[in-house]
Amino acid sequence: MEYRIEHDTMGEVKVPADKYWGAQTERSRNNFKIGPEASMPKEIIYAFAYLKKAAAMANCDLGVLSTEKRDLIAKACEEILEGKLDDQFPLVIWQTGSGTQSNMNANEVIAYRAHVINGGSLNDDKKVLHPNDDVNKSQSSNDTFPTAMHIAAYKQVVEITLPGLELLRATLVKKSQDFAEIVKTGRTHFMDATPLTLGQEFSGYAQQLTNSIKTVKQALEAVKELALGGTAVGTGLNTPKGYDVLVAKHIADLTGLPFVTAPNKFEALAAHDAMVELSGALKRAAVSLMKIGNDVRMLSSGPRCGIGEIIIPDNEPGSSIMPGKVNPTQPEALTMVCAQVIGNDVAVSFGGSNGHFELNVFKPVIASNVLQSARLIGDACVSFNNNCAVGIEPNLPEIKKHLENSLMLVTALNPYIGYENAAKIAKKAHKENKTLREAAVELGLLTSEQFTEWVKPEDMVGSLK
Amino acid sequence: MEYRIEHDTMGEVKVPADKYWGAQTERSRNNFKIGPEASMPKEIIYAFAYLKKAAAMANCDLGVLSTEKRDLIAKACEEILEGKLDDQFPLVIWQTGSGTQSNMNANEVIAYRAHVINGGSLNDDKKVLHPNDDVNKSQSSNDTFPTAMHIAAYKQVVEITLPGLELLRATLVKKSQDFAEIVKTGRTHFMDATPLTLGQEFSGYAQQLTNSIKTVKQALEAVKELALGGTAVGTGLNTPKGYDVLVAKHIADLTGLPFVTAPNKFEALAAHDAMVELSGALKRAAVSLMKIGNDVRMLSSGPRCGIGEIIIPDNEPGSSIMPGKVNPTQPEALTMVCAQVIGNDVAVSFGGSNGHFELNVFKPVIASNVLQSARLIGDACVSFNNNCAVGIEPNLPEIKKHLENSLMLVTALNPYIGYENAAKIAKKAHKENKTLREAAVELGLLTSEQFTEWVKPEDMVGSLK
Amino acid sequence: MEYRIEHDTMGEVKVPADKYWGAQTERSRNNFKIGPEASMPKEIIYAFAYLKKAAAMANCDLGVLSTEKRDLIAKACEEILEGKLDDQFPLVIWQTGSGTQSNMNANEVIAYRAHVINGGSLNDDKKVLHPNDDVNKSQSSNDTFPTAMHIAAYKQVVEITLPGLELLRATLVKKSQDFAEIVKTGRTHFMDATPLTLGQEFSGYAQQLTNSIKTVKQALEAVKELALGGTAVGTGLNTPKGYDVLVAKHIADLTGLPFVTAPNKFEALAAHDAMVELSGALKRAAVSLMKIGNDVRMLSSGPRCGIGEIIIPDNEPGSSIMPGKVNPTQPEALTMVCAQVIGNDVAVSFGGSNGHFELNVFKPVIASNVLQSARLIGDACVSFNNNCAVGIEPNLPEIKKHLENSLMLVTALNPYIGYENAAKIAKKAHKENKTLREAAVELGLLTSEQFTEWVKPEDMVGSLK
Amino acid sequence: MEYRIEHDTMGEVKVPADKYWGAQTERSRNNFKIGPEASMPKEIIYAFAYLKKAAAMANCDLGVLSTEKRDLIAKACEEILEGKLDDQFPLVIWQTGSGTQSNMNANEVIAYRAHVINGGSLNDDKKVLHPNDDVNKSQSSNDTFPTAMHIAAYKQVVEITLPGLELLRATLVKKSQDFAEIVKTGRTHFMDATPLTLGQEFSGYAQQLTNSIKTVKQALEAVKELALGGTAVGTGLNTPKGYDVLVAKHIADLTGLPFVTAPNKFEALAAHDAMVELSGALKRAAVSLMKIGNDVRMLSSGPRCGIGEIIIPDNEPGSSIMPGKVNPTQPEALTMVCAQVIGNDVAVSFGGSNGHFELNVFKPVIASNVLQSARLIGDACVSFNNNCAVGIEPNLPEIKKHLENSLMLVTALNPYIGYENAAKIAKKAHKENKTLREAAVELGLLTSEQFTEWVKPEDMVGSLK
Repeated sequence: MEYRIEHDTMGEVKVPADKYWGAQTERSRNNFKIGPEASMPKEIIYAFAYLKKAAAMANCDLGVLSTEKRDLIAKACEEILEGKLDDQFPLVIWQTGSGTQSNMNANEVIAYRAHVINGGSLNDDKKVLHPNDDVNKSQSSNDTFPTAMHIAAYKQVVEITLPGLELLRATLVKKSQDFAEIVKTGRTHFMDATPLTLGQEFSGYAQQLTNSIKTVKQALEAVKELALGGTAVGTGLNTPKGYDVLVAKHIADLTGLPFVTAPNKFEALAAHDAMVELSGALKRAAVSLMKIGNDVRMLSSGPRCGIGEIIIPDNEPGSSIMPGKVNPTQPEALTMVCAQVIGNDVAVSFGGSNGHFELNVFKPVIASNVLQSARLIGDACVSFNNNCAVGIEPNLPEIKKHLENSLMLVTALNPYIGYENAAKIAKKAHKENKTLREAAVELGLLTSEQFTEWVKPEDMVGSLK
Repeated sequence: MEYRIEHDTMGEVKVPADKYWGAQTERSRNNFKIGPEASMPKEIIYAFAYLKKAAAMANCDLGVLSTEKRDLIAKACEEILEGKLDDQFPLVIWQTGSGTQSNMNANEVIAYRAHVINGGSLNDDKKVLHPNDDVNKSQSSNDTFPTAMHIAAYKQVVEITLPGLELLRATLVKKSQDFAEIVKTGRTHFMDATPLTLGQEFSGYAQQLTNSIKTVKQALEAVKELALGGTAVGTGLNTPKGYDVLVAKHIADLTGLPFVTAPNKFEALAAHDAMVELSGALKRAAVSLMKIGNDVRMLSSGPRCGIGEIIIPDNEPGSSIMPGKVNPTQPEALTMVCAQVIGNDVAVSFGGSNGHFELNVFKPVIASNVLQSARLIGDACVSFNNNCAVGIEPNLPEIKKHLENSLMLVTALNPYIGYENAAKIAKKAHKENKTLREAAVELGLLTSEQFTEWVKPEDMVGSLK
Repeated sequence: MEYRIEHDTMGEVKVPADKYWGAQTERSRNNFKIGPEASMPKEIIYAFAYLKKAAAMANCDLGVLSTEKRDLIAKACEEILEGKLDDQFPLVIWQTGSGTQSNMNANEVIAYRAHVINGGSLNDDKKVLHPNDDVNKSQSSNDTFPTAMHIAAYKQVVEITLPGLELLRATLVKKSQDFAEIVKTGRTHFMDATPLTLGQEFSGYAQQLTNSIKTVKQALEAVKELALGGTAVGTGLNTPKGYDVLVAKHIADLTGLPFVTAPNKFEALAAHDAMVELSGALKRAAVSLMKIGNDVRMLSSGPRCGIGEIIIPDNEPGSSIMPGKVNPTQPEALTMVCAQVIGNDVAVSFGGSNGHFELNVFKPVIASNVLQSARLIGDACVSFNNNCAVGIEPNLPEIKKHLENSLMLVTALNPYIGYENAAKIAKKAHKENKTLREAAVELGLLTSEQFTEWVKPEDMVGSLK
Repeated sequence: MEYRIEHDTMGEVKVPADKYWGAQTERSRNNFKIGPEASMPKEIIYAFAYLKKAAAMANCDLGVLSTEKRDLIAKACEEILEGKLDDQFPLVIWQTGSGTQSNMNANEVIAYRAHVINGGSLNDDKKVLHPNDDVNKSQSSNDTFPTAMHIAAYKQVVEITLPGLELLRATLVKKSQDFAEIVKTGRTHFMDATPLTLGQEFSGYAQQLTNSIKTVKQALEAVKELALGGTAVGTGLNTPKGYDVLVAKHIADLTGLPFVTAPNKFEALAAHDAMVELSGALKRAAVSLMKIGNDVRMLSSGPRCGIGEIIIPDNEPGSSIMPGKVNPTQPEALTMVCAQVIGNDVAVSFGGSNGHFELNVFKPVIASNVLQSARLIGDACVSFNNNCAVGIEPNLPEIKKHLENSLMLVTALNPYIGYENAAKIAKKAHKENKTLREAAVELGLLTSEQFTEWVKPEDMVGSLK
């Protein structure tokens, strides 16, 4: 491989000749061979492109950067956002905990790519832009990386997580309406219980997602606050007056998202509680989805030896050895995602709680976990929705069989004969393998006619209406 | 010990003669000897007293319970709330996952205590109230236990957690004002960085708590919704029309808290996402408090070999072997609480995600963890506040010494001589153990006069004002 | 309340007149009002009694403590171990992170109780023993508390956890033998699969516990190493030569457990990886028990609308509203315990990873979580065993019905007609609601005689024998 | 893109014309668009290559597969192991929870690649090998995927994790020897304490890793047991006699690792407690590494306003804004890895505890988390070792300054003048900012000569030798 020589304040470094990055990126590549290459999430890279462009715009507006430099920076940033420079970001999550090296990776690639855009060569000693003095002007890793985290997370949530959750919620709402008349046995403690409708059951799932969506949106209120303008320790050293508000406005304009400057930059650098909160909200959604996935898995179990009250789409052969087997693979993928999100939340809590003084240095691990959780939940909801939820159908014969058999219909008799007498009927029916009606009449507690009048499953599901 | 005979639908049970509980409580005592006795949180017991009284009132209002029975139930509930019957609730957390046995414990104690209040004897075969048919009327464990969870959690949060957080926040705000003029060295990566004021540092802590308080309050919006009225599976079977709204209103009146009936009872029984959300909010607060506790611990370290920039109160001898040692014991207690709350949150997520069909049967473990977290955070904030935070004072000589020594003041030179030249000064000063001024002048990069003019720590902390 | 005046190196303190504790205990009581009083686990208190007695013996053996003082210390320790002084330990978990205050509580109670045993009065200015100079001789909180943690945890595990796990394992082994001939349908992905015996199913559970027990025992190898002799920072300052080995031997003799001195005292004070390992082993057991509990819950589901292949004992009425309902309450308690243990493990990891320099100051939170996990697992195994597992019986009619219906018997045909043809049979049977035999013959893929010969469930469960 | 038509038991599927995979792989690609493509760990793919080859060998040995087919399968597997077919495995972690689709991906690629090796074309209707009947012979996803998990995890641990841990341990041992004579102040509670040597401090770190390595190795004892031979539900249906033992032996031979067949296949399919245990052992190592990383971070803090007792290598410029700043970036990467591993462990516990009946269907999420943890720990240890630990040097002037200043040297006086008098000296020195000697003499508690004789830091570090 061919190399060129780059330098930084520590001296010279050999860099692959055809790469736009410089000395500091290369040092990080060599010093942090932990896990697969280029693991720093692409969403973070793109977020850096937004913020570097916005910073150049604000710096120019405020008279500390020339329009020529601003435009060069902007062009390089746009190329990053078009995905043209994806292979220029080789760094890993497991680098310095401030993300300084990814900030410098962005600074170097933008500076050197801009130099080439401007007609220069990567081998020129002097470049048109300096990574620190121009591209990083009025910035520090300590405020850019948290800003990139927030931009990336906010975008991920509004572009992937929320649409996924809302798509699935809409389906669940529709199913709850479609199934509104289907009376079925309830189950509590995994045991037969009093009836409800299949629609009611699905309305509970829909409500879970309604609440989860609300919580995720609330968390975004914290994430929309940007650290940029705090620079090294939160004081805003080396920034022009008005910069923090202005740069947030530029980011908001560029992304179309409601970003604002954080009210307290010390908190915004030293803590990532907003990301912890978002992770917690995603975890709450995972808890909801775990319940939904498990219920679908269990309700569709069988086909002959399970519960089998719903039918889910057959998407692929289920077994490499058992012919004809179909499995609830979408609920499985969904619930595995939930396990991951719950684990990620612990990593985020751990990282979030271990900041010291003016800086939290668990930024990359926090960012990567939150971004993964946000993506997985959104993607898994879409996959589960499209390949499973939309196709859920009731298995009416099984539903009917279970409903008629359930001993818990006896609960309807409580107001007429009391809890203890009702219990006698249920126990007798169970022990002697009889119907409730038979047991009730044999015990002399009511007549068959009364049973017909009092025990109507369809009347047991609706007192709340 | 003397016993009397009680019975339930499964038969007879011997119960301690002097206890108000009945057969089902006694069965649970015998069947669940897991951990210490009576571990079910008292807050849950008291919440049951509120809801049983409210249910009696609603039942009476709606014509399904006599005023005489209502008043008897109310009287027994009031005795519970006065703490007079604390020894009547012997059950443990680790019972049935619906909390049925604690619901029945409440039903039995209320019924039998009311019978005695009414002039009867515990040995009477027939009692004035039936635990199921009267005290539990229009209820199921499946909607009462979640309701008790929400009442207990809401109360705990508004009575203990939030006051604790707000007390500490107020102190931190005051300290940030008191310390507003004290310029000190910043630290990022645990390394010397550019200056800020001690007040700014504390303002970050205050902001963390401001945000944590907001998140906890948002979570209460979900917790204020009550499951009561859903009965066995969410359909409200065996409840009179209008009961759910009315009983929530009675609970709100009795507690003075803004409880309302849940919009979807299926979700409210089968999932405890509201508790998961609250636990997540408490965990977020724990993450904030961990940072604050660690910073106070580290800033006060020494007295002679540490960072030593603040002085915290000496509350007790620190060591059983090292004479005269004083330790940051309050931050230690606080951060241990944080570790517990973060662990509790995982237990809650685990329980919350494992509900099936119409019922989540991890209710007691969810309740006990959330209540413990809520209490510990509140108590620890008060303890840390009163015994540590209010007494924090700056150690001005150390602060001054560090500030003057810090090489990172060089950052102020970036706008004048560029990042790379500034780095040369810092490196030379570090290597040759010189002051920045000496190194700068020796390198010929600026004059001593320029240094004096450009490097003013007090000017490096305020550009955001 | 009446008080007497005690003093320590910080001055005078009012102490309840009738209590044996002194100034430092009282300071801690006042300074740490976090959570319920006296929450420091009793197991830790008793462990302190063992170690204080052992230290006195070693000190006497090595000539630095008189036999008279040794015997007085020993007597007071024995009273603690007899439970006579339980009300003398009012401190909470949430105190200093080294547990210094509980160490001093022990030192003070032992010194002052010994003084009274010796004929003195609590009001005497001068006592026969000094809490620090005599009772704490050759010790520091920093080595006593970790030693107490290890003693308490080891005892808890061998007295409660392992007997519980082994009791349940023995029952599961017995069930696997009793059920060895009962062929039933298997289930994978919660869907019908090829058959196995109920005994094989239970053998898997037994194997899980066999492995869990092995892991817990391995963890004890680390826990048996004691920090005592390290004193303040691990160097053993102020201990006589040979003390660490000797005191461990005395502890081993007093407890009958194989304690030894830790090979590296710096590790033993600054890290609690042994407790982290034990917590991880308990968590692994919880993971096993969660699977077992869930399977029993689900296999016993019904009675008429579930899987219903096993019958578990009816221990108590299951519902306060649904008469005659019986629920799998023991599996519920067991799985709630598992959720707690998994959460506790995170708290322990958190505390264990946050030690600094010569001392980990999350000792009490680590200790209390490990002790709770150890107790809950042991107790829950006994409860689940006695009240559920021993009474598990097969529900033969349901097992037979499921086995005969299962389409996955078709797998036996793979070697004869290939996976794809076998799949055609299963799919046809499923779609047309036919038996496999009918579908096979109709498809002309084999004769009814061949079906009889090739598809024998009882031959499908045994090739591994 | 060009396509060819493949089919499976559900019908026809369009597959990219140039890919070796077949219908089932393609279905999974289409049905599980969750997260980035091809996320299933490569280590799992390679493990499948080992096991498919071993299964073919065992099948051939036992007379159920021809030598020609065996050799074709073997050749295709070898190509996978050489990395030639990396782009043939496009599936994601978030698929069916049994990993069936990745098993079928392997079966299809091996069958179709073998067909081409054998001179056939991908467009041939009939191929020389059938994915199910030949490549998957005597196997099920349910036993192959867990086997692949164990192979992959065992290899990862012995090739990456343990070498990394051992490399770092060796360095720490060497440092503890190099620094054996350097007496320094100890710190407990982050506060000054009695002295120890820097070598003793590092010996604690080395001991932590010694213990962690032991625990990881113990966990491998469980991981070495392979599920293969259990097929669909653990009974070994459709396997020839002796197959399970033989196939494990072939895997052991091919990998050079001590794999054996699992003693109980029901456990091996339905639970992944061995992986949970390994994850727990990796988490324990993470807890150790977190302590070590934090200590190095803090001990090297400064350069002028921190603790500064050690000097770590300067590897890269630390700040994009603060010139000349050097940060403890390797400890930061290491501790971020620890946060991830602790989070991953929760995901694994969650997945591990949620198996049902004969199969755990959280296999891929368990595998990917354990593999990531194993890799990250190994890589991070190497990175931290090479770029930080080997270069650690004592900062002797700072160490000396701290040692001489420390008030805790007073502890050496306890045996001479008692704890309370010693405390008076320390308190006076602290309050009046004097040396201990000055305070001691002024208080008249000892002479300056006695002070010289009794307080020798170098005598305070060695009583354990």
